[in-house]
Amino acid sequence: MTEGKFISFEGCEGSGKSTQIKLLAAYLESLNVPYIVTREPGGSIIAEKIRALVLDGKNTNLSDECEALLYAAAREQHLSEIIIPALKAGKIVVCDRYVHSSLAYQGYARGLGADYIRAINSRVVKEYMPTVTLFLDIAPEDAFRRKHGADKNDRMEQQGIQFHNLVYAGYKRLLQSEKNFCAVDCRGDKAQTHANIIKTLKDKDIIK
Amino acid sequence: MTEGKFISFEGCEGSGKSTQIKLLAAYLESLNVPYIVTREPGGSIIAEKIRALVLDGKNTNLSDECEALLYAAAREQHLSEIIIPALKAGKIVVCDRYVHSSLAYQGYARGLGADYIRAINSRVVKEYMPTVTLFLDIAPEDAFRRKHGADKNDRMEQQGIQFHNLVYAGYKRLLQSEKNFCAVDCRGDKAQTHANIIKTLKDKDIIK
Repeated sequence: MTEGKFISFEGCEGSGKSTQIKLLAAYLESLNVPYIVTREPGGSIIAEKIRALVLDGKNTNLSDECEALLYAAAREQHLSEIIIPALKAGKIVVCDRYVHSSLAYQGYARGLGADYIRAINSRVVKEYMPTVTLFLDIAPEDAFRRKHGADKNDRMEQQGIQFHNLVYAGYKRLLQSEKNFCAVDCRGDKAQTHANIIKTLKDKDIIK
Repeated sequence: MTEGKFISFEGCEGSGKSTQIKLLAAYLESLNVPYIVTREPGGSIIAEKIRALVLDGKNTNLSDECEALLYAAAREQHLSEIIIPALKAGKIVVCDRYVHSSLAYQGYARGLGADYIRAINSRVVKEYMPTVTLFLDIAPEDAFRRKHGADKNDRMEQQGIQFHNLVYAGYKRLLQSEKNFCAVDCRGDKAQTHANIIKTLKDKDIIK
């Protein structure tokens, strides 16, 4: 590993990653430490083209394996163009999603299996695992309820919530198997969750 | 495996695959057997978009791993949309390049290693390996000389020929390790090579 520190954020849709990443960026800014904020597949032109392919609603026939391989391809490109150079320059890299998303979404929720995801995310990814992964631990129903209020819960269609529950269960399994994979208590408000994140990063000596 | 037969063609640039595939298609036509001709990544809209990404000359930063994963992703999509349905319908599938190209080009010539290529081409690809792979066995220099004449050999730039020699050496290694991977003698003219291919397919009971 290199001199920089690598912080990844994980969580289900609506878990508050974007907000917490903004708060962390502002905090790092105040510390005057060099950092970048990026997202998967992010940054590189090639990776963004791959993202467009994966997310294009017209590609309804996309096979599960093809989807998982496209995410892995984008990750490699993102690593080589963005993450590795930043780490080598001694920066803190804050990344919205990384390989644990593939494990939770494609590995567990889509049922491809963790072994398959690990196999296709080999070598470079294994050398550049996050110093810490912050898993914003809030169940999909709770995240949705917090966002839209209890009475609008029906907007999240049944198939959707089932899938997101599988993703959440996948993350819970990663808490058992993965090194440096930390659950962040999200029961409080945004500021409290931010404080929990800063405490975790201090405990792990990632920030002072 | 299914009822159809799966024939893949392999070889270096200029080895004559396109010509031999056309001749084979005409032969299958004359036998009145159901068949399709396809190519990697071929056929599917998604796979063609991936192909465009890989082959886009502007993507000069494409990492070797990203390239290999994109080929694997396109292969999965091609399998699920084109090859598997055709095999299940009992057709002969004639495919211009398959996983052995990834082994020769990315695995051996680019140096990613065969184990890596096998790992990322897992599961579905392993279930659908070709009934026979026809490797058009002609060294890159010879292929080029035959095409352009001996005196124009310098047009193939030095870096190019070195890479293609590595690919050719990779194919030679696959002859040792791979099942159903057959070298086709290409020293004669096109018609003789075609006759060699038909003999191989008859010997293997793929055509009558």
